[in-house]
Amino acid sequence: MSMNVEPIARMVNQLSRLPGIGQKTAQRLAYHIIAMPEEQVRELAVAIFNGKKQVHFCSVCGNYTDQDPCRLCADPNRDNGLLCVVKDPRDVAAMERMRDYHGRYHVLHGVISPMEGVGPDDIRIKELMGRLASGEVREVILATNPDIEGEATAAYISRLIKPMGIKVTRIAHGVPVGGDLEYTDEVTLSKAFEGRREL
Amino acid sequence: MSMNVEPIARMVNQLSRLPGIGQKTAQRLAYHIIAMPEEQVRELAVAIFNGKKQVHFCSVCGNYTDQDPCRLCADPNRDNGLLCVVKDPRDVAAMERMRDYHGRYHVLHGVISPMEGVGPDDIRIKELMGRLASGEVREVILATNPDIEGEATAAYISRLIKPMGIKVTRIAHGVPVGGDLEYTDEVTLSKAFEGRREL
Repeated sequence: MSMNVEPIARMVNQLSRLPGIGQKTAQRLAYHIIAMPEEQVRELAVAIFNGKKQVHFCSVCGNYTDQDPCRLCADPNRDNGLLCVVKDPRDVAAMERMRDYHGRYHVLHGVISPMEGVGPDDIRIKELMGRLASGEVREVILATNPDIEGEATAAYISRLIKPMGIKVTRIAHGVPVGGDLEYTDEVTLSKAFEGRREL
Repeated sequence: MSMNVEPIARMVNQLSRLPGIGQKTAQRLAYHIIAMPEEQVRELAVAIFNGKKQVHFCSVCGNYTDQDPCRLCADPNRDNGLLCVVKDPRDVAAMERMRDYHGRYHVLHGVISPMEGVGPDDIRIKELMGRLASGEVREVILATNPDIEGEATAAYISRLIKPMGIKVTRIAHGVPVGGDLEYTDEVTLSKAFEGRREL
């Protein structure tokens, strides 16, 4: 097979280490890449390497950035009074896709998980408290995932912040837009009921 | 979204050009790559670039190789009397996985397809005839795909070679091993019947 040709074998091997890419997909990708013009392959390889090399964590919010502080922290048009706390950088990306939020972010880089040995000191909670000390933040929006660890982390942070007199909110749980009541699990449905609002 | 960070956006954009990788998968891969150790990312990028740079076509059989002639053409233990004709390099890889064939290969780099404007002169048929002129080949095995274009190409090549007194064979069509008669299409089933053998 292609394993006869060492550079192909090496490319297949490297590609198949990526998540969701098995041996067959890696082979298909490798053959596609070999058939691409050399300039395009160079661009791909450079984009991968530079993406890793140039991207680091923002020293303020902890999000991925290629400058420090990141564009979101440096933007003067964003509201310093709102701080949205998320688990990781891809959650910031998700929130920004929504385009409705114009406050700041704080990335925890994990959630509290006793099962996996992750305690409060292993995620960026201390940094969060440091940012709140300035007194500029009016509201902290806890946007960790609605799973056990996300809820526990939100509850933990909430208990720390409330004594400071800062408003703490949690994103709503409910039936997803476009979802179907029939296929919604009971816990979500019960949360949707609990969070019902008058029209 | 991650489009705030230009190196991430560029990586996502490049990855999403690969076949079967959409915007969402590209984003997931990009975030994974950014979280990888830099040395591993370097290996990945180098493997992709070198795979393209070091791999070219074997001047004899037309398969992908990083040396010329390729390992399969240079191997003195392979039978010069057998020549297997395939559409493209990934078919050589498939045949070699089978481990049953020890002859030589000839890669056509395409099949005759009037619909797509590919004629006999656009694929490596002339090179095939050149190789047969040496008189060393006893049997040509036509292993193009069992589709319309593959069959037409096999028929065309067969008509060219037969007058030279060389045996020409075609790989068998039939029910795939592990397949189910109930779900086998009529044409395949009729080919399987036609090609039945005495036990």
